[in-house]
Parts: sequence; structure tokens; C-alpha cells
Amino acid sequence: MGINELFQQELAVINVGIPPFAADLRRQGCRVVEVEWTPPAGGDSELLHALDRLSAVQEQVEAGNKLAWQRMSEAQPFLEGVGTALAVIPGMGERMLLHAGPPITWERMSGPLRGAVIGAILYEGWVDGAAEAEQLAASGAIEFAPCHEHNSVGPMAGVVSPSMPVFIVHNRTHGNYAYCTLNEGLGKVLRYGAYSAEVLERLKWLEHELAPTLHAAVQLSGGIDLRSILAQMLHMGDEGHNRNKAGTSLLLRVLAPLLLQTEAARGVISRCLNFINGNDHFFLNLSMPACKAVLDAAGHVPYSTLVTAMSRNGTDFGIRVCGTGEHWFTAPALPVEGLYFPGYSAKDANLDIGDSAITETAGIGGFAMAAAPAIVQFVGGSAADALEYSNLMYQITYGENALCTIPALNFRGTPTGIDVRKVVETGILPNINTGIAHKKPGIGQVGAGLVKPPWACFTQALLELAQ
Amino acid sequence: MGINELFQQELAVINVGIPPFAADLRRQGCRVVEVEWTPPAGGDSELLHALDRLSAVQEQVEAGNKLAWQRMSEAQPFLEGVGTALAVIPGMGERMLLHAGPPITWERMSGPLRGAVIGAILYEGWVDGAAEAEQLAASGAIEFAPCHEHNSVGPMAGVVSPSMPVFIVHNRTHGNYAYCTLNEGLGKVLRYGAYSAEVLERLKWLEHELAPTLHAAVQLSGGIDLRSILAQMLHMGDEGHNRNKAGTSLLLRVLAPLLLQTEAARGVISRCLNFINGNDHFFLNLSMPACKAVLDAAGHVPYSTLVTAMSRNGTDFGIRVCGTGEHWFTAPALPVEGLYFPGYSAKDANLDIGDSAITETAGIGGFAMAAAPAIVQFVGGSAADALEYSNLMYQITYGENALCTIPALNFRGTPTGIDVRKVVETGILPNINTGIAHKKPGIGQVGAGLVKPPWACFTQALLELAQ
Repeated sequence: MGINELFQQELAVINVGIPPFAADLRRQGCRVVEVEWTPPAGGDSELLHALDRLSAVQEQVEAGNKLAWQRMSEAQPFLEGVGTALAVIPGMGERMLLHAGPPITWERMSGPLRGAVIGAILYEGWVDGAAEAEQLAASGAIEFAPCHEHNSVGPMAGVVSPSMPVFIVHNRTHGNYAYCTLNEGLGKVLRYGAYSAEVLERLKWLEHELAPTLHAAVQLSGGIDLRSILAQMLHMGDEGHNRNKAGTSLLLRVLAPLLLQTEAARGVISRCLNFINGNDHFFLNLSMPACKAVLDAAGHVPYSTLVTAMSRNGTDFGIRVCGTGEHWFTAPALPVEGLYFPGYSAKDANLDIGDSAITETAGIGGFAMAAAPAIVQFVGGSAADALEYSNLMYQITYGENALCTIPALNFRGTPTGIDVRKVVETGILPNINTGIAHKKPGIGQVGAGLVKPPWACFTQALLELAQ
Repeated sequence: MGINELFQQELAVINVGIPPFAADLRRQGCRVVEVEWTPPAGGDSELLHALDRLSAVQEQVEAGNKLAWQRMSEAQPFLEGVGTALAVIPGMGERMLLHAGPPITWERMSGPLRGAVIGAILYEGWVDGAAEAEQLAASGAIEFAPCHEHNSVGPMAGVVSPSMPVFIVHNRTHGNYAYCTLNEGLGKVLRYGAYSAEVLERLKWLEHELAPTLHAAVQLSGGIDLRSILAQMLHMGDEGHNRNKAGTSLLLRVLAPLLLQTEAARGVISRCLNFINGNDHFFLNLSMPACKAVLDAAGHVPYSTLVTAMSRNGTDFGIRVCGTGEHWFTAPALPVEGLYFPGYSAKDANLDIGDSAITETAGIGGFAMAAAPAIVQFVGGSAADALEYSNLMYQITYGENALCTIPALNFRGTPTGIDVRKVVETGILPNINTGIAHKKPGIGQVGAGLVKPPWACFTQALLELAQ
């Protein structure tokens, strides 16, 4: 057909990328279908070159990702007890504080992390008074280390001190362990940087009453299958990061009869049950180490482009990738977009903080929002957005988790295993649900919302993988 | 424009009703949009006349429906205790058995209802042996009456005997009460027509241990707000009829700390918690009387066309309408379409049975399936069907329940208050989720699925309302 013939017919146009072309055609009465498209890696030649280099070793990359994926799929995280950080966390020191995110010095720490460090020093009784605690923190006498470098994870500030109780989660398939503190509730709590007397007293009660009582109950259980609870939660409106109401309920159902079989007095059991019943986020501190145990199972697999950690200390965002092992790729953390508690606004908010993005790294949380449409009441948006967020994440992930399915997507497995290549190619960043901490120490949570990692974490990782 | 001009243009046709017209046009290359349409009331002149008569008193009908809706909206059902049927149910007799559905004689009872009657007679110790129990049931010495006529509801066979324990649900706004037995679990249970020694022993344990222990806990609570639990369940993947997993979990969270405050021994509390924890349908027997208490609040309002009960005895389906008070409109019950437990098929199934359609009558259950996409694993269909079922029910209901919202429909209130006029006008029948009982006495549950009421219940009701 000649070009003139073509233009004499009614045109039906498919426009790829750049929307103004489509708009021009529409103004002339032409029917246009638009395909959303941008050049791979935003057209950046260095990134395209790196993608090409990885394509040249495609077989090794696929084999590495397959192995990493298989280990993650086969991991079986069980809650096996509650222990003291110093006693159970590998490499934990007597004057060490673990924190969320990649490594950071006291000087560069944000307000809520500083607040939690002050609180932990007071909790340990190393000094009296917040001013003295700040001095000690700044003196160099305290060793700071990321939770992630000690098989641990912590929500928000994520501070773990030597005498804090931690959940012991065991991946029974591969033998690795993960640890996390017990969730204190919402509002004025240490993990959001609050350190008032009320906060410290609650922490002492967790240590002296809740932890040993739960440990006794868990011992009687022979281990609680966290993967099974996660699978059920996703059918009950939770996504395992900002919504853990069903998970907390299911955990309480398992714990209540066990608690009655322990030696604990009725009043103690009653206080423990009331505390868990009063905090719908209690299960978060189990969904997180469950995800950590799964991702650590993948370990370091050469050539694998799958992300094994996404984490923030309130100043920097860091990711780790399977093919580069324990190396952190960091960039400045971003602000969270979300809903604020009455009396607070975006100007009070700290930058993105916490190890809780381990849930998204394992394919739940913001990746499983389609399972939890009610969460939009907490983080903002509509139920349709919740579906859309999950659908988008399939474009940047390796596979679908057969054990964690989303009813609203007709039982499709959660999008799991973030592939650095796909993130850079598509320009689609992972979607993270998160809480918002006040930027000053000593205040606490001010809201919840959605956030993305900085682009630079993924481009750095890609360039390093391509070496 | 002349008719010839019209046909020289490209035609864009909207076809209303009868699909073959659209197909013919498509074969000729014409673009057609189809509107699903059938004549009101299927074109039946008697029904159209009845609808016209009601239109003539439109104001009274609207005022009646508004009043009934308001009472239903304002009802506040609370669980206030557990009592013995003979002592608490109004009009309960010493040799009376209540059953699901509209009135029925022993001769016309289906297998599962007969099985439950035999079981109840043995449970009461009125005779020894199933044959003797059948004889007694047939002798006329036992008075049979619908649960619904005694402020009660019962799932499946719904048999209530004088010494059975029942939940006491109180509508605190209007003062009316509703009662329901305690849920026995799945499989071989009385409500599905099983009456083996194991079934009767479990019932005795419910009476002697579970009921008094729960009563003591509920007394300490000052009343448990069932409407609040229902609202939460719908955000946690339950629809309150065939899926009550979240409701059961939330109830257990409330009960566990209360049980510890009672005088009950630890072993007793432990057995009670294990029993509830072992049965995800435990809350059904609270969602049902909660709905009954709400619908009874509407009571008898002249001219109101809203349905106040849908119920089945395994032989007949009966409905009650607000404008005609306690009158039953009945027609033969229909078979259930669904999924069967291994080893069973449709040929084993009894017809539709149980008072549990009280949940759909109150706007949850099959009307709220969009809140519970995971239920399709139990009753069949896809997640998209679950959304569709709920969307369709808005066409036959009076309003949207502001307290029970569906996250996946962007927090739209559940479609509530079935309007007989709308059912007959549109030809859309209510959608009911239900269990399937074996048709022979003594066996139990064989599956679960979806069912509709017979059309004749609604046409009879419309004709009576038009009088």
C-alpha cells in the first residue's frame, strides 16, 4: 500500500511513549491508543552498558537468581523463643547498640534515632539523664552497628541494647536465625525516638514479665510456624508491614492456650494477653524477622541480582544485593508521603527510617497491598491504588510466592524477589508502606504513609554487579 | 435527518434486551453496545399490577421503609451472656424443639433436620436409641416450632432443645433480644444432622463446661459489642456467614483476658480457648443472632416492603417482610451449588437449609462477599465473582450500611435491606452463601456453596403487600 493510500484511510494509531504526539493526533480526530513507555534505564548510557554486561553473562545471572529464589522459597521461619540480645545475638557487645539501616555515626544520626539511642542508654542504666546519655553516645565509648549486620532487624529506629529481649526466629530449612525486639505499641515508644519514663518503664516490663512468659509459652509450642501465619494474614486483610491486625489475632489465638500451660500466675498471663490484645502491630516484630530469616537464607550468591535487604537509618537508605553479599549501596533517605496524626504535618516528619522494608524485600508489605485494601485508611489512597501498587511490583520481581497468595488478585502469589536489573530497566521503584517518626528526639510517631527508595541505591548496585 | 441519510452513516447501535438483535448487527459489521434488560417483573401482568398498586401508595411505602431502615441502622447488638434455652427463650416449652426455617411437621422434615431432632431427643434423654427417638418425634408428643418464632436463629438444622445453652444477644437501642446455640465445629455435628455418641458428648461439654465459663467471662465484660466485631471482620476478609475466621479471632482476643479473671480453673479455661481456637466458624453463632436482633428491631411496620427474615428448614424456604409482620411466604427450597468435601457429590446433598440466611437479610454474608474474596476457596468461583455478587445486591436493597463497609469497594457500605419490590422488578434474587448438609440423617456436612431463594417467596410477598 502506498503512503498516500494509507493516509486516505481512517487512521488507528498506537503511540509509544511521549504523550504530546498522541494529544496532537487526537486534536485532529484520530483514534490513538497510548502505550506507557520510557527508554530502558531512562536512556542513561552507563546504566545501559551495565545492563548489557549483565546480559553477556545471562546464564550465570539466571542460575544465581534461581538458586537465591529457591533458598528463599524453601525457608521455614519458626518462632522458637524469646532471649536476651547479649546472650543470643551473634557478635552483640556489652556496650554495643544496634540500629536500623546501613552503618551511621552518632554525628549523622537523625532525631528519632538519637532519641532511641538516648532511651537505650538510660534503659541500660549506663548513665542518668538525657544530657549525659547524649554525651556518652557522642564520646565514642558506645559501639554502633546495623541490626542487619547482626542477623537482626528493628522497626523504625530499630535500636537494640544488650539487655533487651528479642524474638528468636529460626529458619528450619537452612539453619539460620533472625532476631527482633518485642513491639511496644504505637505513639510514644522507643522505636519512634521517645524516651520518657513511661517509655522506659514499659520496656522494663517487656524485659521482666512479657519476655520470659512468652518464652515459656513458645517453648511449649515446639515452635510457631510464622510462614503459616503470614499466609493466613494475607487472606485476612493484612499486608504484614503497616497492617498486622490479623497476624496479631492469630498469634494470640495460638499463645493464649499455651500461656495457660506455663507456670506463670494468672495475673501475669492476663497482663501479657491484654498487652498483645491492645496492640494490633504486635505481629510486625515477627513478620520482620521472619522475612529477614527468609532473605538471609539466600545469602551471598555470585551473579544474583536479587535484593536481600532494603533498610533506612533515618539519614541514609541502604540496600544489599545477593550477588554482592554484605555490601551496602546507600543514598540519602527520602521523605514519606502519608497521613498525619492530628496536630502534626509534613514539616514535623523525619526522613524514611527503619528496617521494616525487609517486608517489602520479601514480597509482602507494600508489595502485598492488594491483600489489605483497608490499609489505605492508615497510609492514604484508595482501594484501587492498593491493587495497582501490587500489580506494578510484578514488573520488578523475580517470581510469585506460592505460599503467600492475594485473594483479590485471584490467589496470585505475592510479587517477590526484587531484581536490580528490572528496577533499573523499567524505572519502577519498590513501593514501601511505613510509619512516620517526628524529626526531633523524644516525641514519637506522627503518621504513616508510602515511600520509595532512592534511585541511586539501585544504579550503584547495578554498576557494581556489572563489574 | 431523513431515514436514508441515517443509514448512509456509520451506525452506532445501543441494543436494549434480547441479545440476538445485537448479534445480527455485529455480523453486518455494525458496532453495538448491549444493555442487559428484561421487562419489569418478567412482564407478568399480575405482578406489574401489584407494583402499580404499591406505587399508588408510594409515600406510605417510603415512610414505612425509612422507619424500618432507621430502626435497623440504630440497633446495637451486644453479647450479654450464655443461658439455658428453657430459662431464657420466650415461650420455650419443656417438650419443645425449635428448628430452622418456616414451620414444618415431622412428616415433611428432610434428613438432616430429622437427624438433628433425633440427636436433640437423645441429648435431652427423653428416650434411649435413635429408633425410639424417631417414634417419639412422630408421635405428636413433641412440639416443633421455628426458631424465628421464638426470637432465635439456628444454623443448618437449627435445632434448639430445652437444656441447650444459648448466647443471649441484646439490642441495647430497642431492648429486643435474640438467641442462638453455641457453634459445635465442622463435620459431624448436630446442626448438620449427625447424632453419634461423639456429637452428643460434645454437646454435653458445651452445656456443662463451655457455656457457664463463657457466661462468667461475658458477665465481666459488661457486654461485648457485636456490631463493632462485625465491622472489623469485614475489613479482615470475613463476610460473616461462611467465613468467620477474623470474627472468631477477634472474639477470642476479647474473651481470653476475661476468662482469666473468672473463677474457672486453668484447665477449664484452656479447654475453652482450645475449642474456640479450633473452630473458625465459632463466631457464626454470634453473627447470626446479631443480625436477628437488628432485623427484629425493624419489627412490623405497615407498608414496608423490606425483608426481615430469609430462612429454610431443608424442605421449604420462607421469608418474612416488615409490612406483613410474622407471616411466612414459603416455597420449596432449592439445591445449593458449590464445592463438596472429598468423597461427596451433589447427589448426597440435601436442599438448602438453615436460619443462617439471616446474615444476608442483614446485608452481610453473600451480600458482603466483596469483603471476603478468600471465601471462593470454600464456596467456589473467582475473586471477581465475589465482587460481582456484592455489586449486584445494591440493585435490590434499600441502602448502604454505614457501619459495615467493604474496603475493596472503596469502603462502600454493605447493600442492606432487601426490598421485595426491587427483587420482583429486576428479577435479581438475593445471593446466599451456605453450607451443604448430607440428605440422610446422621451424616453431617458434605460441602459449601451458593444458593438463591425461590422466586415464588418474593412474588407471594409482593402480592400480599399490594392488598
